[in-house]
Amino acid sequence: MTTARVTPPRRGRPGYDLESLLAVVVKVFNEQGYEATSMEDLSRRLGITKSAIYHHVSGKDELLRLAVDRALDGLSEAARETAALEGRAIDRLEHLVRRSVHVLVERLPFVTLLLRVRGNTEAERRALARRREFDHLVGELVRQAEAEGDVRPDVDPAVASRLLFGLVNSLTEWYKPRGGLDADALAETVCKIAFDGLRRPSVPPGDPTT
Amino acid sequence: MTTARVTPPRRGRPGYDLESLLAVVVKVFNEQGYEATSMEDLSRRLGITKSAIYHHVSGKDELLRLAVDRALDGLSEAARETAALEGRAIDRLEHLVRRSVHVLVERLPFVTLLLRVRGNTEAERRALARRREFDHLVGELVRQAEAEGDVRPDVDPAVASRLLFGLVNSLTEWYKPRGGLDADALAETVCKIAFDGLRRPSVPPGDPTT
Repeated sequence: MTTARVTPPRRGRPGYDLESLLAVVVKVFNEQGYEATSMEDLSRRLGITKSAIYHHVSGKDELLRLAVDRALDGLSEAARETAALEGRAIDRLEHLVRRSVHVLVERLPFVTLLLRVRGNTEAERRALARRREFDHLVGELVRQAEAEGDVRPDVDPAVASRLLFGLVNSLTEWYKPRGGLDADALAETVCKIAFDGLRRPSVPPGDPTT
Repeated sequence: MTTARVTPPRRGRPGYDLESLLAVVVKVFNEQGYEATSMEDLSRRLGITKSAIYHHVSGKDELLRLAVDRALDGLSEAARETAALEGRAIDRLEHLVRRSVHVLVERLPFVTLLLRVRGNTEAERRALARRREFDHLVGELVRQAEAEGDVRPDVDPAVASRLLFGLVNSLTEWYKPRGGLDADALAETVCKIAFDGLRRPSVPPGDPTT
């Protein structure tokens, strides 16, 4: 059998607490897909028996629930924080985007898994329902910002909401935590592009500030 | 074994040509994942025998290659068209984004499959290599646009390239072809947000045009 990472294991088995177990499980789910992963696969990758896994959880469904809740709890916290803010909707929306980028960076494998959930099991449907609550909040903020005259008039708010989070969620496809770019810089770039666009703003003729 | 689409099939079996076969296959790959799909699964979903599938292709690997090439050929054509354009890089980049949205809308299941390819087989690695060529062109255009002073100075061009196509690719997650929004309107909204941002531009005080 395999050995533990730091402390000498009992009976040659690696010891897992729920967090370190989930870290491996979410990696396997992301690599193989949740549906295609069996408890047998998890047992092999963890280097512990299936009954040792059942010591922590009731089964694969609970593992998924715990994993996607890591992502969803982060996003809910960002949403709650945003809901408590005052001021214009466009600024609250920007706050939510910024905080969401932080959640993605800090909980990348969990959010990656969440975004791949398709809704075939109870745990998946529950995750999708929680995700929809979040999307609803985003949609509401975009609509409010539009009503307050802060969204450009030539975009459909519903499409804009989708694109905004498409942009944020795309991080799970390419962001490498050790790539050198920190969460603050990334959140700043995401917000610049999403809210102000990639194109350099045209300078009014004779503007002395540039 | 197989018959054409238009004429009544012999012996009660659905007839497929390569296109109609691929349409079903790409659907199954997207639902179940390429790796998790067996020739047996495909045979069942197509309602024809495995040897009838082998009449069209040499195997699963060729099916993947043909399917992702539908997406990649569309993107390559958009890239070639863009390379032939003259003018500022930011405008050529906008053209490429606009054309890419059209490719995604017109070939949605094929692009969806392409974006899920992970590189475990020869056909997958080949698809990833072709995708990288495209990403390289995008990166080049962003860098050129930056050199020409048309990209806002406070974003990293490499990150901007990723985000730009993260935004476009996110369409595969939510766009429904029968949802009422046509490709032109969608491409327009994507370009507005990507290049000019969601926020209504602030109007210089006393501007008489608004």
